[in-house]
Amino acid sequence: MSRPSRSLSGSSKKSKTNIQGLRNIKLVLEYDGARFFGFQSQPRKRTIQGVLEKALSQLLNRKTKIKAASGRTDAGVHASFQVVNFYTDKEISTDKVIRGLNFYLPREIAVTQAVEVQPAFHARYSARFKTYEYRIWNHSIRSPLRASSFCHYPYPLDLKPMRQGAKMLTGKHDFKSFCNQAQAEKSSIRTIRKFQIIAHGHEILIRVEANGFLYRMVRNLVGTLLDLGRGKTTLKDLEKILLKKTRSAAGQAVEAQGLRLIDVTY
Amino acid sequence: MSRPSRSLSGSSKKSKTNIQGLRNIKLVLEYDGARFFGFQSQPRKRTIQGVLEKALSQLLNRKTKIKAASGRTDAGVHASFQVVNFYTDKEISTDKVIRGLNFYLPREIAVTQAVEVQPAFHARYSARFKTYEYRIWNHSIRSPLRASSFCHYPYPLDLKPMRQGAKMLTGKHDFKSFCNQAQAEKSSIRTIRKFQIIAHGHEILIRVEANGFLYRMVRNLVGTLLDLGRGKTTLKDLEKILLKKTRSAAGQAVEAQGLRLIDVTY
Repeated sequence: MSRPSRSLSGSSKKSKTNIQGLRNIKLVLEYDGARFFGFQSQPRKRTIQGVLEKALSQLLNRKTKIKAASGRTDAGVHASFQVVNFYTDKEISTDKVIRGLNFYLPREIAVTQAVEVQPAFHARYSARFKTYEYRIWNHSIRSPLRASSFCHYPYPLDLKPMRQGAKMLTGKHDFKSFCNQAQAEKSSIRTIRKFQIIAHGHEILIRVEANGFLYRMVRNLVGTLLDLGRGKTTLKDLEKILLKKTRSAAGQAVEAQGLRLIDVTY
Repeated sequence: MSRPSRSLSGSSKKSKTNIQGLRNIKLVLEYDGARFFGFQSQPRKRTIQGVLEKALSQLLNRKTKIKAASGRTDAGVHASFQVVNFYTDKEISTDKVIRGLNFYLPREIAVTQAVEVQPAFHARYSARFKTYEYRIWNHSIRSPLRASSFCHYPYPLDLKPMRQGAKMLTGKHDFKSFCNQAQAEKSSIRTIRKFQIIAHGHEILIRVEANGFLYRMVRNLVGTLLDLGRGKTTLKDLEKILLKKTRSAAGQAVEAQGLRLIDVTY
């Protein structure tokens, strides 16, 4: 959901007045999204942002909000590498930010890096590429030890058409067919730079790197590739799906727990 | 806790009368032990055995107990390969046993194999070797995505003395110093056949294969190796710990969630 086409200075009027003279701190987070209602704050719901801002406010001794996140992960989605930034006037070392936040945060979230960056850095608008990984346990029998971070797909898969499909989707395309809640006034054109399918025994890892992702895009892409792998659709169908530019054309979205944000490049 | 010194026919009198004419089914299980009070049945507690026997009884339409498990894992300990056996007179195919049990079992337990074996097969007494793996996240910052299956050890570790210690412990020894609740009348001599320490970045996997394990033995061994790796003790100390034959001599047991039973050889 990042909008990399916007310029680096594309922050709102409010922040421009706020950031004068403030330090801009970039954080890298890891989290287990299972018991959160996604990243973005929602009233009376436990979210990553809500829990993080509570810890920030405790550490800095005043109500502190984050300026941005590289992207908003959905309910149940994990991250081994999520980036956020916040402004503060406190003279606290980044080492103490890491240790202090990890003290206040629950075990499901950790801050793994903290670094002071230029005032113009914006975790979302400055992001050039993000990488998501989707994990599939492809075996007739479910795997309890993988239940929290893999999607169980019990049907045999042929990886060859899946890899051909991934190759077809790589590059600059209008991904409207893979977007839930597409908005007419917003562009649904994105560039996929890398789309890999890696098999380790019965574990299949699908990694996709793009300059931005539409809502539910990764899970819709993976669902569509699984239809190819199972032989329900062909590469010709995939071409049509892409051209139709309507969500109902593509395959079903896969479950949230298999998905994780694993990298953001600035 | 297996006693491989016993003969294959070492089952109790009760079972001998029970097994006449019955089929003996061996099952391989995978489970996430986090929300169980260990393997062994206990009144009013959720255990792997309790939940498995309930599913077996539902499938076979009569109260069915397992005869044995290769070993009883503690509360919180996982298994990617646990073996049990049970007797039945039902003419159900092993394929249907797998599918039926996986239907009745909760998502935290799965039956991955089922095979009909000789009447004398006993999951515990017939076991020749078992392998446990202990997983350590060796980084100053905890890892939320590894929290359920790794032990977080934040201090720097030198793997060299740990590997030397593991080598020293390999072979036939009296492991009384590594046994909680040692019983005077029972032998605490076991043979460790393989003791490996594998590092992948900050992940350290400790694998130990033995002809049997005493109560808490793996977790006590790992705790003692961590003392060596951190420089709290030396190889000379380890020699003394082994010779002292008293639990208080060795290092602290490590947490349960890092441990998993990964193989049993018959």
